[in-house]
Amino acid sequence: MLTVDGLQYSNWSREIFEQMREGGVDAVHATLVYHETLRETLTRIGEWNRRFEAHGDLIMPVHAPGDIERAREAGKVGIFFGAQNCSPIEDDIDMVAVLRQLGLLIMQLTYNNQSLLACGCYESEDSGITRFGRQVIREMNRVGMVIDMSHSSERSTLEAIEISERPVIISHANPSFFHDAKRNKSDKVLKAIAENDGLLGFSAYPFHLKNGPDCTLEDYCDMIARTVDLMGIEHVGLGTDLCQNQPTSVLEWMRNGRWSKEMDYGEGSANNAGWPKPLAWLRDSRDFPNLMEALRAKGFAEQDVARIMGRNWVELLERTTTPME
Amino acid sequence: MLTVDGLQYSNWSREIFEQMREGGVDAVHATLVYHETLRETLTRIGEWNRRFEAHGDLIMPVHAPGDIERAREAGKVGIFFGAQNCSPIEDDIDMVAVLRQLGLLIMQLTYNNQSLLACGCYESEDSGITRFGRQVIREMNRVGMVIDMSHSSERSTLEAIEISERPVIISHANPSFFHDAKRNKSDKVLKAIAENDGLLGFSAYPFHLKNGPDCTLEDYCDMIARTVDLMGIEHVGLGTDLCQNQPTSVLEWMRNGRWSKEMDYGEGSANNAGWPKPLAWLRDSRDFPNLMEALRAKGFAEQDVARIMGRNWVELLERTTTPME
Repeated sequence: MLTVDGLQYSNWSREIFEQMREGGVDAVHATLVYHETLRETLTRIGEWNRRFEAHGDLIMPVHAPGDIERAREAGKVGIFFGAQNCSPIEDDIDMVAVLRQLGLLIMQLTYNNQSLLACGCYESEDSGITRFGRQVIREMNRVGMVIDMSHSSERSTLEAIEISERPVIISHANPSFFHDAKRNKSDKVLKAIAENDGLLGFSAYPFHLKNGPDCTLEDYCDMIARTVDLMGIEHVGLGTDLCQNQPTSVLEWMRNGRWSKEMDYGEGSANNAGWPKPLAWLRDSRDFPNLMEALRAKGFAEQDVARIMGRNWVELLERTTTPME
Repeated sequence: MLTVDGLQYSNWSREIFEQMREGGVDAVHATLVYHETLRETLTRIGEWNRRFEAHGDLIMPVHAPGDIERAREAGKVGIFFGAQNCSPIEDDIDMVAVLRQLGLLIMQLTYNNQSLLACGCYESEDSGITRFGRQVIREMNRVGMVIDMSHSSERSTLEAIEISERPVIISHANPSFFHDAKRNKSDKVLKAIAENDGLLGFSAYPFHLKNGPDCTLEDYCDMIARTVDLMGIEHVGLGTDLCQNQPTSVLEWMRNGRWSKEMDYGEGSANNAGWPKPLAWLRDSRDFPNLMEALRAKGFAEQDVARIMGRNWVELLERTTTPME
């Protein structure tokens, strides 16, 4: 069964790529950057080019949706890039097309904070999509770069969906009805995503889950079933947010970038500052078959399991990343 | 007849693209940058993306040699990018592959001065290819980026040819036997280029010509004939160095970059500081048919005229810009 994970940010290594293959993962949306400048983003791309060269037997780049099928046929994991923030384009709309040429398929308009484009989910006031943001959305539509609102706040998300001529996604988050967290999404947002033919990738990051790291696989599948009722079977997928083997310094970079002089703990706290304990049933990419089996046990038809496990991600990329005429 | 100009750096405009079409030009090696940093280079690429969007009826990008045929069939001018200096990669070998992904097909290792890679033709001492330069040559070979030694000095050029596993070019210069200038090339260099299956593009920049702006078309064709005797018919092409409508500030940028506090006049002098007077027989791209006719008049067979006018450039790109296994 074709499997796509709609978000990972691990301390990439051959071992991790081998785990992906072992778990039957065909493609992964890999976070390229959090707060990096354009120049720093190119360094990250350069590092990935070295990985593609060194581990070409295990991984290959995905620059268009068809590349996922090609990766699968070659027995490799397709890697598609996403930026968790709009920092790579800096203040320059022309960099949207340039980064798309380099394989950046997905970009979040903001990461927790206000950006030049939109408002993040940790701000107290959300004034919606900015003047620059409106133009960037149109440019992302044009070149085929997916708009991801995972870390954005409600009004900005709804406005992005309204402005965008193509589907908008939430690559990694969960419904608020399952667990109330700043990063999770209201029914209103989820319905708007679905009506716009977008996609929600279910997060397995403990801060986004009921009972945190102790969330059961049964509860997780129950959440999926309820969300399918709300959004439809075609608009959900996986976005585990697996962050393997990353030091705390990376967590601090994600949360603080260069913007904060005080330590910001994001979804954690001073007493709970580190990485959350991983889920027992999703330790790494080798555990994806667990999830597949649990969805079957939950009663999903085989074709629906296939949609959730990866087919919906492939179709979403087909309708969003081809250049517009 | 397929026509390729192996170097232009004009103040690009719709008028200039129309002139190319009118002159039957199918592809142009366009200088992207002289001394720009990587970030600045991306801005130049962004500007070109806007031109491709605005003038898509006249021009299209060339990312692989086959794109030149596609441009011709579509009745458009194919544009392929070159850097006249290695400044875009800064000190980062990984940027060779990144820039190749963005369509940079050609890069000079140095522009007149010593660079991090090699020595330029205006330095008094040439210590040859540097440690970084040796690695960059291998990386350029690997990703399919052509090594251009137009503004390099003799020893560096000969060493680059020896180190490179693929043909090396001089995109725009002339033989020293025709006109002795720092930028023109010795018989030894030209023979080495030919033996390595590379290419010399004949410059029409007055400073590289006998009698400067008064050089006759007959003398120019005589130079071509003598060079064909030296290098073989398969190793020569055009590289006019046409710089239309550029202000003097651009000439000063080419000559001085950010490295000089005194005005450097390059091939000119304090008394002759501006752009040279253009040739009467090559005012702009509409005059390429003049050159074609003159080559015929000189007695070149039709297939040899075709080689000089463009076929050799296409074949050179075929043997140098495809990625290596």
